Amino acid sequence: MRIDIITVLPELLESPFNASILKRAIEKELVEVHFHNLRDYTDKSYNQVDDYQYGGGAGMVLMIEPIDKCITSLTSERQYDEIIYMTPDGQTLDQKMANGLSLLNNIIVLCGHYKGVDQRVRDRFITKEISIGDYVLSGGELGAAVLCDAVIRLIPGVLNNETSALTDTFQDNLLAPPVYTRPAEYKGMKVPEVLLTGDFPKIEKWREDQAQARTEKLRPDLLEE
Amino acid sequence: MRIDIITVLPELLESPFNASILKRAIEKELVEVHFHNLRDYTDKSYNQVDDYQYGGGAGMVLMIEPIDKCITSLTSERQYDEIIYMTPDGQTLDQKMANGLSLLNNIIVLCGHYKGVDQRVRDRFITKEISIGDYVLSGGELGAAVLCDAVIRLIPGVLNNETSALTDTFQDNLLAPPVYTRPAEYKGMKVPEVLLTGDFPKIEKWREDQAQARTEKLRPDLLEE
Repeated sequence: MRIDIITVLPELLESPFNASILKRAIEKELVEVHFHNLRDYTDKSYNQVDDYQYGGGAGMVLMIEPIDKCITSLTSERQYDEIIYMTPDGQTLDQKMANGLSLLNNIIVLCGHYKGVDQRVRDRFITKEISIGDYVLSGGELGAAVLCDAVIRLIPGVLNNETSALTDTFQDNLLAPPVYTRPAEYKGMKVPEVLLTGDFPKIEKWREDQAQARTEKLRPDLLEE
Repeated sequence: MRIDIITVLPELLESPFNASILKRAIEKELVEVHFHNLRDYTDKSYNQVDDYQYGGGAGMVLMIEPIDKCITSLTSERQYDEIIYMTPDGQTLDQKMANGLSLLNNIIVLCGHYKGVDQRVRDRFITKEISIGDYVLSGGELGAAVLCDAVIRLIPGVLNNETSALTDTFQDNLLAPPVYTRPAEYKGMKVPEVLLTGDFPKIEKWREDQAQARTEKLRPDLLEE
C-alpha cells in the first residue's frame, strides 16, 4: 500500500510515523508513506498557500492551485483508489471503513488546515471525505495520522501474532473484555479467579460474557447494527 | 491548564506538540504539557512495564505497578480534576466534551498500548475513559494528541481572532458552510456570486442556508439533538 499525505505541516506528522507500529510497517516495506509539503507547489511569494475567504469571516482557506498541482503531479504517476480529504464534516471513520481502506493500493490523503480548503478542491478532486470524530482539530494532520494508524495496522504482516487485531474491540461489534496481568494480587485487588484456572473453554466463555455485558452497558448502539 | 500524559512511547508524541497551535499555546504559557515515560516508574529489569495477559491470548497488557507509581507521584503534588484513560471502549469524544474539558485546571491522560492496561488500573485510578472514535489504534498516544488538540485550541487566547473556534463545525450542531478563496475563477470553476457581492447580511443568510442544507444531507443526526 502507498499513502501520499498532502499537508502544510509535514513536521507535525514526523514522530507518529517514526515510532511503534507505523515505523515497523514502513521498515518492513508493507506500506510506503510519502509527505508532500503544499508549499512546494506554489509559485506565490513567501510560499503562500492560503488566503482570506470570500465573503469575509475568520480563518484562512487553503487555495486550489497548489493542491491541484500536487494532486495532478501524483495522479500523473500512478492510479489512486481514493483521494481523501480529512474534514470534520466527512463520513465518520469506523472499524469497518478502516478494514475496507486497508485493502486499497494507493491513496492520497489531503489535510485541511486553518478554516479548510477551497470548496472547489472538494468538488473537483476529492473522492472520499473522512472525519475521525465529531470534534474540531487545528488541522487534518492528526486526523490523517489516526486514519493511517487505524488502516496500516490491519495490513497483513504488520502486526505479529501477539498483537493480532482479530480480538480487538469493534471487530465483532463488541467491546473487548477486561484484561489482567501479573501480579495476581496488588494492594488487595485480585485478578478474577477464572483467569487463573487454566480452563480455557471456561475462560473463553467468561470473556464472551464480559464483552457482551460491557457492550450492553456502555455501547448498546453497537448491538443494534 | 496542566496536562500530564503517561505513555510508553513519549517519542511518538513529540512532533504534534512541537508544531502549530499546540506549540504556540505552550509557548504562550496557556497550557503546560508534561510527558511521563512509564518505563521510568518500574523497578523491573529491562524497564519492563507490560506482561502477558492472565488466561492466555494475544497481546501484552500494561502492568498496574508502574502506573500506580506514576499517578501517585503526580497526585501527591497537586489535585487533578480528571484522570483520563484513552481507550476505544470509553465515552466517545465530541465537541461538547472538549468544551467541558477545556475548563479544567489539571488532568492526567493515560495512554494504553498493546492490548491495554490491567483492568485494576481502570477500577482504581481512572475517573474518565475517553475514545476518539469507533476504531482501534496501535496505542492511546494518537488519541491523547487528538484530545489535547481538540481541548487546547478552545482555551481562551490560544486561537487568535482570525482562527476563532466560534464558527467551527459542531459548535452549533451544524456543519460549516463551504468556504472559498482566490482566485474567483479557476479553470472554469467559479466562486458562488453571492460571496463576491459584499452584501454581508445576504452572505450570512447564504451561509446559514448552506450549513443547514449540508447538515440535513450529510449528518441529519446532529439536528435531532
